[in-house]
Amino acid sequence: MGKEIPSRSEDYSLWYNELVKKADLAEHSDVRGCMVIKPYGYSIWEKMQQALDKMFKDTGHSNAYFPLFVPKSLFEAEEKNAEGFAKECAIVTHYRLKTDPNNKGKLIVDPEARLEEELVVRPTSEAIIWNTYKKWIQSYRDLPILVNQWANVVRWEMRTRLFLRTAEFLWQEGHTAHATADDAVRETVQMLDVYADFAENFMALPVVKGRKSEGERFPGAIDTYCIEAMMQDGKALQAGTSHFLGQNFAKAFNVQFTSKEGKLEHVWGTSWGVSTRLMGALIMAHSDDDGLVLPPKLAPIHVVIVPIFKTEEEFKKITDKVTEISSALRKQGYAVKYDSRDTHKPGFKFAEWELKGVPVRLAIGPRDLENGTVEVARRDTKEKKVMKMDEINTAIPALLDDIQNNIYQKALSYRNNMTTEVNSYDEMKKLLDEKGGFISAHWDGTMETEAAIKEETKATIRCIPLDAKEEEGKCIYTGKLSKRRVLFARAY
Amino acid sequence: MGKEIPSRSEDYSLWYNELVKKADLAEHSDVRGCMVIKPYGYSIWEKMQQALDKMFKDTGHSNAYFPLFVPKSLFEAEEKNAEGFAKECAIVTHYRLKTDPNNKGKLIVDPEARLEEELVVRPTSEAIIWNTYKKWIQSYRDLPILVNQWANVVRWEMRTRLFLRTAEFLWQEGHTAHATADDAVRETVQMLDVYADFAENFMALPVVKGRKSEGERFPGAIDTYCIEAMMQDGKALQAGTSHFLGQNFAKAFNVQFTSKEGKLEHVWGTSWGVSTRLMGALIMAHSDDDGLVLPPKLAPIHVVIVPIFKTEEEFKKITDKVTEISSALRKQGYAVKYDSRDTHKPGFKFAEWELKGVPVRLAIGPRDLENGTVEVARRDTKEKKVMKMDEINTAIPALLDDIQNNIYQKALSYRNNMTTEVNSYDEMKKLLDEKGGFISAHWDGTMETEAAIKEETKATIRCIPLDAKEEEGKCIYTGKLSKRRVLFARAY
Repeated sequence: MGKEIPSRSEDYSLWYNELVKKADLAEHSDVRGCMVIKPYGYSIWEKMQQALDKMFKDTGHSNAYFPLFVPKSLFEAEEKNAEGFAKECAIVTHYRLKTDPNNKGKLIVDPEARLEEELVVRPTSEAIIWNTYKKWIQSYRDLPILVNQWANVVRWEMRTRLFLRTAEFLWQEGHTAHATADDAVRETVQMLDVYADFAENFMALPVVKGRKSEGERFPGAIDTYCIEAMMQDGKALQAGTSHFLGQNFAKAFNVQFTSKEGKLEHVWGTSWGVSTRLMGALIMAHSDDDGLVLPPKLAPIHVVIVPIFKTEEEFKKITDKVTEISSALRKQGYAVKYDSRDTHKPGFKFAEWELKGVPVRLAIGPRDLENGTVEVARRDTKEKKVMKMDEINTAIPALLDDIQNNIYQKALSYRNNMTTEVNSYDEMKKLLDEKGGFISAHWDGTMETEAAIKEETKATIRCIPLDAKEEEGKCIYTGKLSKRRVLFARAY
Repeated sequence: MGKEIPSRSEDYSLWYNELVKKADLAEHSDVRGCMVIKPYGYSIWEKMQQALDKMFKDTGHSNAYFPLFVPKSLFEAEEKNAEGFAKECAIVTHYRLKTDPNNKGKLIVDPEARLEEELVVRPTSEAIIWNTYKKWIQSYRDLPILVNQWANVVRWEMRTRLFLRTAEFLWQEGHTAHATADDAVRETVQMLDVYADFAENFMALPVVKGRKSEGERFPGAIDTYCIEAMMQDGKALQAGTSHFLGQNFAKAFNVQFTSKEGKLEHVWGTSWGVSTRLMGALIMAHSDDDGLVLPPKLAPIHVVIVPIFKTEEEFKKITDKVTEISSALRKQGYAVKYDSRDTHKPGFKFAEWELKGVPVRLAIGPRDLENGTVEVARRDTKEKKVMKMDEINTAIPALLDDIQNNIYQKALSYRNNMTTEVNSYDEMKKLLDEKGGFISAHWDGTMETEAAIKEETKATIRCIPLDAKEEEGKCIYTGKLSKRRVLFARAY
């Protein structure tokens, strides 16, 4: 069928790329580093958006929209943030093209249409948003501001990868402003919890909640919290971050408020985001050599029905039955696809819907009609069984719940199996090369040690887990005293 | 309260600007021509998006996402389209900033990071999308492609106006590909009907469906259909367009397919879009000197409840009652806001929610509790009446329907009153200056006449209405024969 993909063990990276393309999720565009998200891929992203958006609103946030462009003078106002993004940003310098005088039909940049001040295409929106918040905030009564934005951002990455790292990507970025440091920290942690909840309960993806080391912090943040997930090749993937910004942006943009006590104070801030990178995490965490495996809560199609027939009459009878079954399932809120194409054989259809990760497949043939049965196949375990047709309507919801749960449990036991406590640097290096995964080890807390380990092993500190217990130990690299273990891994 | 806005008769333009700002819909940003859409304004846009998105999906379309940037060589491929947008586009020329060697802490564009090929920030996405469709289409089996994108676009307009004309705006753009001209025209008209349906049934905005004259067509289209609405100052506003692109983009990007008969043919295309401009139309069409008037189907808050109390005990009793009423209304799907602030008086709250256009306001005081009554005020007509509390739950839905209908009828009779058949140029000029509105007149069908009338009167041909009946007449400008009337107006 020309839709086969390489196996994971053969070439994990190629497996991923081919899967993304062949399952109609995304493809490279002719614009350097930018992808096209295809309809099927986008419909999964829409499911993610809907679930997250509801969670944001349930925690009191509203959506708004801020400009795509950041004037250079605003961009550079918060120094660390500017430094962090200056090296990889797209810059608008002109606002007009004109006909090439030497080559009619071709266009050139009109040198007379140079902007007085260059505009940076937002790599993130703290600068433009805090510059706006200055106008919105005078008094403690104006706080908190709890705003989220769904937007595209651009980071001029040199090495790109569909969904995981692209020059332009889609994301949401929450930006909140608070009267006290405590309020802002509480918000930062709350949104980390929202992300973890989403990852585990919708994406079926177990994550470790933690804090970033200083070296891995968001530029301009005081503290960066993150959720980290484990992919099937033993590499970690940062799936979401939530930043406590302290008063850094408030000071850079002079955002002050009069407190209840009548004092003029700088506002405290947070920002938090997840992006289309989550699509990459979803694909990499669960899929197999036959294609996507989608958790039912994010599947655009829950159930696909394939008719098995030879004659037109058989097809009609099956179709009548399918109409009945699918309308009953749709009434319960499930998305059902009837693949009635007469241009393809059932085997082709089975493979195609497996590739696309539809959680449940029903097959119905003439004998099923006679016996009042249907063949039910689940995508995750590939198990098939024959069921009574009149049980379908109650069995499918339970089956989908079971699939959702099974995918999560499978990922969780894999993740647990791929997390190793290590007490020596040699052991760590050996593990990294032979198995990968999360390595729980003692670290002396310095940026120098972190950088040296990264240089030598390509492993970074993914996070200092929030639930890490206090434990006396010695840094695997320097032998200096350490109070708790951190998680190292090679990462996407 | 500092929230008063000028009256429409005083200064319509200022009334609009102040209303947009004071009702927390949008504001200017520090980025030239770009606006910030504030949470309340954005929540109305979200309602619009939800309704439109459902209509697009119900007509078989899927969402996808294409790159923000268009390489210059793709941008210029369809000549007319390029010519139409070249004069007003933002151009990315560099991908890095660096520290200013003469001024640490400041950044400058790194001259070494110049792009080999400049990127145009999309003013519209035909070029990038047809360049992609080339890869998606081989055979008639791949057609039709029915795709929509929700995105931001940039057009470097010199004179900007919140929502109505901004350098960056949000929109949806549908891009479809078909095997035959007939199919594409059918799609073009179907989407025009979807837009008209949305305008009339959600926005409560009557629109004229028509075709643009050649001079007003979308650059690169064979035919542009549009919906035109009448604002309260007698100016017209184009609220949506749907373009039949013929084979123009297919030819420019070499998109061909093998037909059922085995012939290689160019694909037929359409594109169609509505934008945050609709927010401007919504505001201008219905609002009054006290603020916004929102049709219930797009109102983020349907019912606001204001307690009238002196003592804490009264407040508690009222709040108990409000909890009961609002939870019953919410169960029916209505958004209810309880304005329990103790920092503001009822009069202030009434004015604020009027400014924000909430369709229904309930006020409850101690006497209401005794009598089992509630004061119900509707925003559109300002009528108030006292109702039995136990009738609220059935009365509100009916009242909201009535408001939706009343707003539409009011706009319709205004529009009808502002549409005049005119048979001489003098009469037209007089009408334009004294009354404005749509002027239905004969036109000889030439671009020269259209341009001359525009030059002399600032009125343009808004559209050739689809329902215009054949009628012999003489062009009001040249006296030449004409077969049907067209609609002229000054426009936003």
